[in-house]
Amino acid sequence: MSTPWEKAAVLVEALPYIKKFYGKTIVIKYGGHAMLDDSLKEAVLTDAVLMKYVGMHPVIVHGGGPEITEMLKRVGKDSRFVGGLRVTDGETMEIVEMVLVGKINKGIVSRINRIGGLAVGLSGKDAGLFQAVKKYRKVRTPEGREETADIGFVGEISRVNPQIVSTVIAEGYIPVIAPVAVGPEGESYNINADYAAGRLAAALGADKLIILTDVEGIMADRSDPGSLISVLRASEVPSLIERGVIDGGMIPKVECCLDALAGGVRTTHILDGRVPHSILLEIFTDKGIGTMVEK
Amino acid sequence: MSTPWEKAAVLVEALPYIKKFYGKTIVIKYGGHAMLDDSLKEAVLTDAVLMKYVGMHPVIVHGGGPEITEMLKRVGKDSRFVGGLRVTDGETMEIVEMVLVGKINKGIVSRINRIGGLAVGLSGKDAGLFQAVKKYRKVRTPEGREETADIGFVGEISRVNPQIVSTVIAEGYIPVIAPVAVGPEGESYNINADYAAGRLAAALGADKLIILTDVEGIMADRSDPGSLISVLRASEVPSLIERGVIDGGMIPKVECCLDALAGGVRTTHILDGRVPHSILLEIFTDKGIGTMVEK
Amino acid sequence: MSTPWEKAAVLVEALPYIKKFYGKTIVIKYGGHAMLDDSLKEAVLTDAVLMKYVGMHPVIVHGGGPEITEMLKRVGKDSRFVGGLRVTDGETMEIVEMVLVGKINKGIVSRINRIGGLAVGLSGKDAGLFQAVKKYRKVRTPEGREETADIGFVGEISRVNPQIVSTVIAEGYIPVIAPVAVGPEGESYNINADYAAGRLAAALGADKLIILTDVEGIMADRSDPGSLISVLRASEVPSLIERGVIDGGMIPKVECCLDALAGGVRTTHILDGRVPHSILLEIFTDKGIGTMVEK
Amino acid sequence: MSTPWEKAAVLVEALPYIKKFYGKTIVIKYGGHAMLDDSLKEAVLTDAVLMKYVGMHPVIVHGGGPEITEMLKRVGKDSRFVGGLRVTDGETMEIVEMVLVGKINKGIVSRINRIGGLAVGLSGKDAGLFQAVKKYRKVRTPEGREETADIGFVGEISRVNPQIVSTVIAEGYIPVIAPVAVGPEGESYNINADYAAGRLAAALGADKLIILTDVEGIMADRSDPGSLISVLRASEVPSLIERGVIDGGMIPKVECCLDALAGGVRTTHILDGRVPHSILLEIFTDKGIGTMVEK
Amino acid sequence: MSTPWEKAAVLVEALPYIKKFYGKTIVIKYGGHAMLDDSLKEAVLTDAVLMKYVGMHPVIVHGGGPEITEMLKRVGKDSRFVGGLRVTDGETMEIVEMVLVGKINKGIVSRINRIGGLAVGLSGKDAGLFQAVKKYRKVRTPEGREETADIGFVGEISRVNPQIVSTVIAEGYIPVIAPVAVGPEGESYNINADYAAGRLAAALGADKLIILTDVEGIMADRSDPGSLISVLRASEVPSLIERGVIDGGMIPKVECCLDALAGGVRTTHILDGRVPHSILLEIFTDKGIGTMVEK
Amino acid sequence: MSTPWEKAAVLVEALPYIKKFYGKTIVIKYGGHAMLDDSLKEAVLTDAVLMKYVGMHPVIVHGGGPEITEMLKRVGKDSRFVGGLRVTDGETMEIVEMVLVGKINKGIVSRINRIGGLAVGLSGKDAGLFQAVKKYRKVRTPEGREETADIGFVGEISRVNPQIVSTVIAEGYIPVIAPVAVGPEGESYNINADYAAGRLAAALGADKLIILTDVEGIMADRSDPGSLISVLRASEVPSLIERGVIDGGMIPKVECCLDALAGGVRTTHILDGRVPHSILLEIFTDKGIGTMVEK
Repeated sequence: MSTPWEKAAVLVEALPYIKKFYGKTIVIKYGGHAMLDDSLKEAVLTDAVLMKYVGMHPVIVHGGGPEITEMLKRVGKDSRFVGGLRVTDGETMEIVEMVLVGKINKGIVSRINRIGGLAVGLSGKDAGLFQAVKKYRKVRTPEGREETADIGFVGEISRVNPQIVSTVIAEGYIPVIAPVAVGPEGESYNINADYAAGRLAAALGADKLIILTDVEGIMADRSDPGSLISVLRASEVPSLIERGVIDGGMIPKVECCLDALAGGVRTTHILDGRVPHSILLEIFTDKGIGTMVEK
Repeated sequence: MSTPWEKAAVLVEALPYIKKFYGKTIVIKYGGHAMLDDSLKEAVLTDAVLMKYVGMHPVIVHGGGPEITEMLKRVGKDSRFVGGLRVTDGETMEIVEMVLVGKINKGIVSRINRIGGLAVGLSGKDAGLFQAVKKYRKVRTPEGREETADIGFVGEISRVNPQIVSTVIAEGYIPVIAPVAVGPEGESYNINADYAAGRLAAALGADKLIILTDVEGIMADRSDPGSLISVLRASEVPSLIERGVIDGGMIPKVECCLDALAGGVRTTHILDGRVPHSILLEIFTDKGIGTMVEK
Repeated sequence: MSTPWEKAAVLVEALPYIKKFYGKTIVIKYGGHAMLDDSLKEAVLTDAVLMKYVGMHPVIVHGGGPEITEMLKRVGKDSRFVGGLRVTDGETMEIVEMVLVGKINKGIVSRINRIGGLAVGLSGKDAGLFQAVKKYRKVRTPEGREETADIGFVGEISRVNPQIVSTVIAEGYIPVIAPVAVGPEGESYNINADYAAGRLAAALGADKLIILTDVEGIMADRSDPGSLISVLRASEVPSLIERGVIDGGMIPKVECCLDALAGGVRTTHILDGRVPHSILLEIFTDKGIGTMVEK
Repeated sequence: MSTPWEKAAVLVEALPYIKKFYGKTIVIKYGGHAMLDDSLKEAVLTDAVLMKYVGMHPVIVHGGGPEITEMLKRVGKDSRFVGGLRVTDGETMEIVEMVLVGKINKGIVSRINRIGGLAVGLSGKDAGLFQAVKKYRKVRTPEGREETADIGFVGEISRVNPQIVSTVIAEGYIPVIAPVAVGPEGESYNINADYAAGRLAAALGADKLIILTDVEGIMADRSDPGSLISVLRASEVPSLIERGVIDGGMIPKVECCLDALAGGVRTTHILDGRVPHSILLEIFTDKGIGTMVEK
Repeated sequence: MSTPWEKAAVLVEALPYIKKFYGKTIVIKYGGHAMLDDSLKEAVLTDAVLMKYVGMHPVIVHGGGPEITEMLKRVGKDSRFVGGLRVTDGETMEIVEMVLVGKINKGIVSRINRIGGLAVGLSGKDAGLFQAVKKYRKVRTPEGREETADIGFVGEISRVNPQIVSTVIAEGYIPVIAPVAVGPEGESYNINADYAAGRLAAALGADKLIILTDVEGIMADRSDPGSLISVLRASEVPSLIERGVIDGGMIPKVECCLDALAGGVRTTHILDGRVPHSILLEIFTDKGIGTMVEK
Repeated sequence: MSTPWEKAAVLVEALPYIKKFYGKTIVIKYGGHAMLDDSLKEAVLTDAVLMKYVGMHPVIVHGGGPEITEMLKRVGKDSRFVGGLRVTDGETMEIVEMVLVGKINKGIVSRINRIGGLAVGLSGKDAGLFQAVKKYRKVRTPEGREETADIGFVGEISRVNPQIVSTVIAEGYIPVIAPVAVGPEGESYNINADYAAGRLAAALGADKLIILTDVEGIMADRSDPGSLISVLRASEVPSLIERGVIDGGMIPKVECCLDALAGGVRTTHILDGRVPHSILLEIFTDKGIGTMVEK
């Protein structure tokens, strides 16, 4: 445990970072392991409250995770597949929305309030925050033909109206956002949370987008734990994908970063959500942690 | 269908009522049959949007209804009873909250937005809107003794912090509120929606509280359809309860009205939600409909 | 008489129009028959009050009419003519101003206040609203020569300073404006009211200019009551004038519409002021009435 | 003519008075000789503009004067008398209002604008500024009986709503007010201008009420030009009236002062309007001129 | 040196204290050893800048110290004594003011700006912040008589006008205040800095007054280093003075605390300015350091 | 002494000038003889207070003068010279700053407050108002070579941050500014006051820059007292310098005027500070006095 003098030293060292991000909006995509472990949950949301108090404007966009699968199981909902992709039919979407908005979102709000901030939970339906259109996916049939598959109520954001989020920030609250959007006929769409966070960061003119993942960052060589790429330029991404250095689930995350950068966000970060207080470490230390993707 | 001239006449007749309620807050408890029938849903929410546009500030507090029961059935949740009362255990509360906040609330928000207003859905957890303590009920054991029963996560509002609702109103949105509250340990409580509407109306300094029910109003003689009591003074209520004129499910509704009146609300109304546009009729005609309870 | 349910239906049908013109400024040139008949007066000004309450910003510019002639007769003022045009000499102008500002304007203000709005009467002299220069007219002498005639204190607006009107609107009042302007030496000028309304609509960035007339609108064939032109493009006007379809007193009115359109007003309307509530019918029904002139 | 150095000295001497009245509202009853002579008009209104520029808030309430009589003559309107009092019948009131509002008021507005201020003319009808009820007068019949006479549209202010005047002041304009009020049925009433000024001063919380008259002030002995009473306490007034020192037309003026003082105005002044710039002299010199009536 | 994880832990522990003092005004009397040692200077002012960034409003009132004595020596100014007290004659006061305002104050301002805050230096003369009257001291003559001694330009604050300080705070600056006041004739007075800080804290409605001293705090037994009194109630002070526990230079400091408490300041603190970052330690740790004097 | 009527006439004549400069910022370089003579001091600062009250925004930038030299003498500080220029070493700069900021500035502030304004004294260090870099001077060695001389802490303004001055003006205070700036390492620099006034006038978007000097203005022929140049175009300056009409200490003053004009100041004035109220005479009379340099 630190002595009082060491504590004072740490606070003083934090000053330049507090100055740097004063009044800046920082969008945090909250998902993965950090949503499951209780002490990680507490750490992530404490970081957000601390950021709010020292003058930053954190915005949390959360994902879904295993609670959705569990609820689908409980209601005996079987999943249908098209070309290997799970189809979000109407009934599934209803469950998805209930769990995201009625359970996960309010759980986060409630925990933030208990830690000492004041949060307001929103879904993309509130005040027309996220409007979406249906998303089709290319699939390959068993015979090898490429087809456009209808995978149900999975949407693509067509318009972001961030006014309600700005209002909530300006009134001193922390906005917590569930990645559900509304379609042209009022139907609900499930939206990828990384993607929602990226689009929202751009619409808000955020300074930073932080994506919490379950890996350390982007590794130059996955077999070498010391090969973390700390800083990556947007222009280097295509060749890294081509060479397979960035692959699998990391590709869409990096693409969200590129989108956000193109939309005016200053820096984007892929952090290890399994490390307690990784957000604070990124913001309040010089080297940062994880991989920063910048223009 | 009305001719253009008849239409103009109706609009002109509406003017005194528009003036009367200009800038006033009107809390609507939305429940019962009006939440089930699609054309009634459309009518109630259109009324709210119209009220917003002509300068009033409608606030909707909604109930739950059959969707909760249905979901409990789907997840195979059996209800436990204590002294004849259903117990809301933790698992049940989770379902209740998911359906109220993740399904019903967002369905209302989405429909209002489609009609042309802009709604923001909130639960009592957002920004600490409703804080609650556990509610115990007196029950009579089979042996005839009176006991205090633990009926689980059913709460009583201990504090209302209406700031977020006022903000949302002031920014031009229609607030839509799910009757869920947060307890001292962050646990969720189910709150009676009539009661939540009454408490919120008082906290907001509302001008009117409207409770939509499935009856015409309070009848002097239930066997006589012409015996509707149009206006009721708060002071007359106790004797009407004693004489059994007000009984059953109507008692708590009337008590919410009395609470709201005591908290400063100007008038309270028990309307027949089965009649399309009953809210408009109450607000825009001289006689009003249903029963008005006033000081 | 409509039933309550028909009334509700009419209000609900009005909603899209209320939304459409919410917060928009609508300048109404009030003149002709609608200024003489008591029930028409009541109807026009009730329309204005209703518009104000549902969130629009009506501005009334009124004309003079027979009260001026009557007063000139009463003071025994003979009119002098130059080349067939009546000359507004100093004495006449004094009477014109007194009747317009001291009688007609305040009569309108007083009636609006009685209906339930709050009006503020202004002349073009107040806060430098309308500045004017003398207007000369070309006349043909009996010998057939063209001459420039001095017709006295008839002016042409040289500058509009709409600040006081904007202030009055913003404070919740309905501005009522008499078409009198001030010249470079402080002298009073009579201004054509259609023209004043058009210039003011442009200066205020109004959404709509409505000119109340004593005809149904512009007719393609005046002998055919069914030949009303509902919508007219600005570009079609010159050929209609050339072909004599638009002629006489309608020409200056249409020119005011063109001026207002050129100044940024979205649509302009020539309505039949003899029809009660013609303004409401124009604003709250799909087809509108009269002739709309648009870009 | 003063040298530049004498000019500077005068400006410097004015400083304490500018400080003293900075941001204060000063109501000026403008009437009598000062409304007839052109150079006096220019002097009074220049004083008002100067006051506005050095941070005071002048408000002008004007009277009627000979222009009303002249116009009544021109329209051949004979006056009817009851018990020696002229009756303001409907026709007369119409002329009175036209002249006050349409001629005198706008003449003042126009002159102020030319001097370099910006004035807004208002009548008591605008925005419900002055509401009145009919005033009856006690008269003595030739037979010596006392009777209540109906002298027509002469009113007594029943309510002052000074909001529009405050708005106009706050926006940087000089309000110029005609003493016309509106009755319960929308009828016009002529109001005594001294009285209107006094009531308005109280309603605005004015610092000073200045009444311009055609005498030097209140004289202890009218035959002795050196007997001007400079300062008079409200409590001394009754005995001065009893002793006949204050009599005739001065009585109602002094009563307006007492009313204004009772309504919270700090000081009231009866000045000689025949002296050019008497208002400036009162405000910018130590001794003041005329008679000050204070609590 | 702390690891990143220890750093995060410290920041998280600071959260409750940041919340507690958010938006609160904290007046710091800066004097003694902490004004002499360069690294202590840096520490104190860094603490102030950090407080500003995390949402508190620090206000610095500084003392004089050895720089005044040094300058008096340099100009060859001999001190005159009356009854053992040094007399601040006019010439001395001039030097005092120059050093306090022109050297020490601007040195603090400059250093804060370099650390990354923005400071504005004020003396009690600016905007009439501190008004003073001459202070006389009771002295005992060699013969043992008590006399009132004139010790020159040493003043007692008679009025605090904290408007300029509030403005400077609200605009985001850190106010730095020299303890000089202005007398009735414009003469300068030297004011005890502890006293100025206490009076200012009360006038600003500050939450905390912190007095930096050169001792650890108030000791129950000065020979026992472990006898620090951490918390002292205002009511206990008189008996501690009587018993000699509080004596010498500590008495006026404690009296300033009592004055500030009486004026509404919530807590007051006597801290050891020789300890680096003692202010941070007081604010960001549970036990605090030094002696807290509270009501 | 003027009669009351002459006084009124002077005030009325001042009106056009009050209107002209209403809300305008006027920077006054205060120096020379006007800082030494007590009645001149009173006159200059009274002028500033009067300007403030009639709606102008005076800003005073003062010089140093003999008080600095006197204090240097008192502390026995000998001056070192390089190439004929006095070197401002660290010790000298300390004295300069103390006298400017701690004595002269506060003396001016105090006097303004006594006259009835409210002043706030600032140095260029406050809120980063003036940032400077070291200034080197070209000198000629005895051997005739040109060399760059280090003349110590004499600076050149590199950046003006006028925010604090604007705040102080907007809050109703008169800013009084000492020409001291802060260097990159926090060191103090002495700045020429004419130059500081010119740069500040440009940064504030001032309407006027007034430089008080000890001469009548620029003379076409110094031997002829009647040859004052009243108006000078910026373009005429170079040839006047070449011809020796403008020379010596007047050159830098005129260059400040040119700089200010280039930075957007409307007019600049070189006035005779030995004439009482020369500022008022310039502002409130048609001809002005001294020399006006304009674009």
